[in-house]
Amino acid sequence: MTTGTLPVPPEKPSSRITFRRILLGSPLATNEMPQQTVGKLVGLAVFASDALSSTAYATDEILFVLAVAGTAFFSLSIPISLAIAALLLVLTISYRQTIFAYPNGGGAYIVARDNLGELAGQTAGAALLTDYILTVSVSVASGVAQIASAFPTLWPWRVELSVGLILAMMLVNLRGTRESGKIFAVPTYFFLILMLVMLAMGFFQVLSGRLPTVSGVQSEVTGGAGLTLFLLLRAFASGSVAVTGTEAISNGIQAFSEPKSRNAAATMAWMSTLLGVMFVGTTILAYRAHALPAETETIISQLARTIYGPGPLHVLTLAATTIILVMAANTSFADFPRLAALHAADGFLPRQLTYKGSRLVFSWGIVFLAFISSLLVVLFRARVTALIPLYAIGVFLSFTMSQLGMVVRWTKIGRLRPEEVLETKASRLHYNPQWRRKRAVNAVGAVVTCVVMLVQAVTKFIAGAWIVVILIPAMVWTFFRIHHHYQMVRRFLSIEGTKHLGGPMPIIHIVLISGVHAAALRQINFVQSLGVKWSAVYVAIDEDRAADVRHKWDQFFPHEQLTILPSPFRDLVGPVRQYVEQLRTAHPDAYIHVVVSQILMDHYLEQALHQNATVIFKLALQHIRQVVVTDVAYPLHLSGLPVLPTAPPGQPAES
Amino acid sequence: MTTGTLPVPPEKPSSRITFRRILLGSPLATNEMPQQTVGKLVGLAVFASDALSSTAYATDEILFVLAVAGTAFFSLSIPISLAIAALLLVLTISYRQTIFAYPNGGGAYIVARDNLGELAGQTAGAALLTDYILTVSVSVASGVAQIASAFPTLWPWRVELSVGLILAMMLVNLRGTRESGKIFAVPTYFFLILMLVMLAMGFFQVLSGRLPTVSGVQSEVTGGAGLTLFLLLRAFASGSVAVTGTEAISNGIQAFSEPKSRNAAATMAWMSTLLGVMFVGTTILAYRAHALPAETETIISQLARTIYGPGPLHVLTLAATTIILVMAANTSFADFPRLAALHAADGFLPRQLTYKGSRLVFSWGIVFLAFISSLLVVLFRARVTALIPLYAIGVFLSFTMSQLGMVVRWTKIGRLRPEEVLETKASRLHYNPQWRRKRAVNAVGAVVTCVVMLVQAVTKFIAGAWIVVILIPAMVWTFFRIHHHYQMVRRFLSIEGTKHLGGPMPIIHIVLISGVHAAALRQINFVQSLGVKWSAVYVAIDEDRAADVRHKWDQFFPHEQLTILPSPFRDLVGPVRQYVEQLRTAHPDAYIHVVVSQILMDHYLEQALHQNATVIFKLALQHIRQVVVTDVAYPLHLSGLPVLPTAPPGQPAES
Repeated sequence: MTTGTLPVPPEKPSSRITFRRILLGSPLATNEMPQQTVGKLVGLAVFASDALSSTAYATDEILFVLAVAGTAFFSLSIPISLAIAALLLVLTISYRQTIFAYPNGGGAYIVARDNLGELAGQTAGAALLTDYILTVSVSVASGVAQIASAFPTLWPWRVELSVGLILAMMLVNLRGTRESGKIFAVPTYFFLILMLVMLAMGFFQVLSGRLPTVSGVQSEVTGGAGLTLFLLLRAFASGSVAVTGTEAISNGIQAFSEPKSRNAAATMAWMSTLLGVMFVGTTILAYRAHALPAETETIISQLARTIYGPGPLHVLTLAATTIILVMAANTSFADFPRLAALHAADGFLPRQLTYKGSRLVFSWGIVFLAFISSLLVVLFRARVTALIPLYAIGVFLSFTMSQLGMVVRWTKIGRLRPEEVLETKASRLHYNPQWRRKRAVNAVGAVVTCVVMLVQAVTKFIAGAWIVVILIPAMVWTFFRIHHHYQMVRRFLSIEGTKHLGGPMPIIHIVLISGVHAAALRQINFVQSLGVKWSAVYVAIDEDRAADVRHKWDQFFPHEQLTILPSPFRDLVGPVRQYVEQLRTAHPDAYIHVVVSQILMDHYLEQALHQNATVIFKLALQHIRQVVVTDVAYPLHLSGLPVLPTAPPGQPAES
Repeated sequence: MTTGTLPVPPEKPSSRITFRRILLGSPLATNEMPQQTVGKLVGLAVFASDALSSTAYATDEILFVLAVAGTAFFSLSIPISLAIAALLLVLTISYRQTIFAYPNGGGAYIVARDNLGELAGQTAGAALLTDYILTVSVSVASGVAQIASAFPTLWPWRVELSVGLILAMMLVNLRGTRESGKIFAVPTYFFLILMLVMLAMGFFQVLSGRLPTVSGVQSEVTGGAGLTLFLLLRAFASGSVAVTGTEAISNGIQAFSEPKSRNAAATMAWMSTLLGVMFVGTTILAYRAHALPAETETIISQLARTIYGPGPLHVLTLAATTIILVMAANTSFADFPRLAALHAADGFLPRQLTYKGSRLVFSWGIVFLAFISSLLVVLFRARVTALIPLYAIGVFLSFTMSQLGMVVRWTKIGRLRPEEVLETKASRLHYNPQWRRKRAVNAVGAVVTCVVMLVQAVTKFIAGAWIVVILIPAMVWTFFRIHHHYQMVRRFLSIEGTKHLGGPMPIIHIVLISGVHAAALRQINFVQSLGVKWSAVYVAIDEDRAADVRHKWDQFFPHEQLTILPSPFRDLVGPVRQYVEQLRTAHPDAYIHVVVSQILMDHYLEQALHQNATVIFKLALQHIRQVVVTDVAYPLHLSGLPVLPTAPPGQPAES
């Protein structure tokens, strides 16, 4: 056995400063992955932005739906918000159990796959991926709507601003952030404080009877349709976007410092409390201040303007809201590529998605997310209300799958003998005497989230939910197709058990020339260096040029064969393909080795002036069995001296 | 000398019906090029659409400019239109001489290049190419404006309609038209008759004092700026777009039946007369009927509606106008690619532009024209008035260059002795005793068109003409850069006078594997079949996988060398490039032959699931001197049986 040594030291990235490097930063080695952990205070900042930011639009969306019935029914927004707060409570309690069960991270994909199998796992994953995309679109659109509430001149540019923000986030994330943790704390707490102060001032004004009425809102409220149960449920469904993002902590337990699960659970409790208070508080104040849902001014803006009066505090509140919304979108830029990479690593998405770029981030996933969410923003003209019907169905489906997975898990635990330990792919099961009670908690969670998901799908179906209802099963189907493909390829490529590796076969060498020039000499020199028998082939598109080639050939290579293939249809490729196929038929047990040449320029603009016949030939020939294509590149440095086709024998070539 | 026979009959295009074939038609052989000629009546129809169609917007544009001064100055549109008619007369007389001097076709590119040299020729060509693009944009935008005048509901869709029309024309032209001639006659004469009838009825109404006043036009007329000389000149410049397209016949003399020049000249005289009558007539009637320039209704629509009354004749006139405008745009689809191919054949534009597609049309030029003119339509929101400042400068520059060329030609003729004949590239010069008078005619033409061009460039500079003023010199500069490039490449590739062709050089064979699997076995079988010494190389992105590869390698190839290159930055290409460069340094006089493999799927969707490492490697290695890359394709037909890596010796491989 001959084993190669490692003569090559690992290549260090060059220190050359390129545009790419300025934009994306220097490459990081694999072992530079960050291992830092965070406490509860920073953890809240890191994981809460997605959940907390939904207060920026959830109340608006309830009012938009109720407005169809009429402003007289706006009082219903308060019980609806309380119902959503109750839903949040159920979710928090049942996810608390997931956090303790999966201390290494219990995202819906992992929990569903671990307990319910592949189909459930892929479904939960597809649902979450859909929702991550919408989180970006909705959060950015809402963020821009907040700024535009303060500066109405920006309103006509909302689509451009949204897409610009998404692209900026894409670049930041392609760079990767090593300093993720603490940088998130400042804006999150800034937002929290401004919101809580506003709510406190507002409630003080309510109690002292001095809360002003919102004025000057150009609302599109139509009203008069009358209240129906359907409308009431739809208002609830639209408002339930408030709870999106609460699952974030269960994905990131690993990021907390020890005791991980306990810290994560405590953080989740705090987050839910804050979210509930802010959401219900905003909704009550909006009702008391007679706020009106409007595309041109958000409820938060109306409240801040009314409570603080127009001025810096109003603008500051909106700035903080915009920032937290952008941060919420940004969490999707971390979560989406990571989840997609999980799918890809398991063979359910293209393998390229597992590729960590030079900055240790999943580059393809980031670019894809930016593209799709931008597309949605453009298609829906950056209107939050238009995007909402698509949103939250995915996350509620993943809630349901995850809770259902937990129910199955508790059932398994109940079957264990005490002291017995069961290892699954992603967790370890011990007997727990409280399994019945805990299973009941998760069962309630599963039923409640399932009902909410169904309400969402039905009440928002026509308004856009149908897209998601079709999309998620289509994604799952595609995932399984991809998985099947990779399994087939692995099976077909496997040489396990192969005994006979096959002996050498004859090779027919053909040199495909585009003229008798220096590049052709190089091609011919290469086959001559191989020391094999060969012949040349030329395609005659133009008869005069063909005659000239024949003449020069006879002058330079009087003893070698040149076949000129006629091409009356000016087709470069067809005659070659036909010729090669004839050779294949005549010599079925031989390789056909086609040697082509490519003239290479220093600059791609120069290259564009030359037809890339090599690529055309390769595409045409590669599917013919046993055809091997060799590309003899001929670099032409027009700024320097002509490159000599070959070095004279015994003398080294200039380099 | 061994000369190859031609064992391959010319490949006939398959009769398989593909989407491409339905859209673009079956391929045509080179000798299927049409040779038909046309008489004066059909010739007028073929070549006049571009010129005649400008009456659809020229009057509008004069009025738009005068409207800035105020509707009180609209009477000035009549002297302006008469001045433009005089310009048309000058042009017609001087172009008549060109037609007789260049019976094989006397486009500005040819005449300027033949008499004034390369720079003048390229300048005239660049100017014409610019204007062909604008002819498409302006004509299509105006055509859509005509339809939208009849059906105002179409107005919001004008950009989409225009782009759709351009794309449809692109497809028709990629198909190519063999039946070009007579098909053009019907709509041209349809338009002529409808216009002349309308003008006749209108003038009858004027004379009998019964011409109604145009009503119900929503005009954007502002007025009140007062009349200045600048405004007057600008109105003239805007209206002079009426004469664009008059040069068309001089390009197409070859298409006429004998006596070619005489027929062409007579047709040109007819065309100019019709154009002058229609343009001046429309302008006078527009003034008498108090028509108002408006983006939402063209002058032709206002006149037809007022003269005929609303109804089928109004709509019919607009339909005919739209059709002639589309035909005008369509002539650019023939002229632009043909002129671009002339430039390309002379080496001033990329060679690919000379490529005649399977339907004998210059495919690249057609696609490029469609793309650029669509872009202009989108950028200028399909507003004719916004596009006009860019239009006509190019064509007047080419008029000037062409006439100047004729002046030089007459001077040369004046220097000849009687009976003496001078051959230039594109024409034959005989002594002509009337050379002084004829030179004077062309000189007047040159001066007049030059003055008009300068007036256009100055008065419309800020409104958009600056784009063209910058663009044309930039194009000429680029043309010469491209020419220089091709000359350099030809010089560098030439082996004229080469004596020593170089002897064989050593080759180092490297097999780059991505694992120990069937595709790698195929690579190895190929080098083993070459009968050379080789070694394998593997890049270790993941250490566990690398260990597995090493293990399998030792199992299958215990006697062959495998070098594993570490890649701490997860870079597939860097370590290989570094390794190859080290080999190059150690063996400067050898080829480095890198054998890569590509797994080929039947379907491009399947292919997308696999990283195309071959392309990545080639791009990274091709610029290293004396590196030759061989691609051993491994087709994987997942629907069939696994492809055996090699045939057992002595037994033919299954095909």
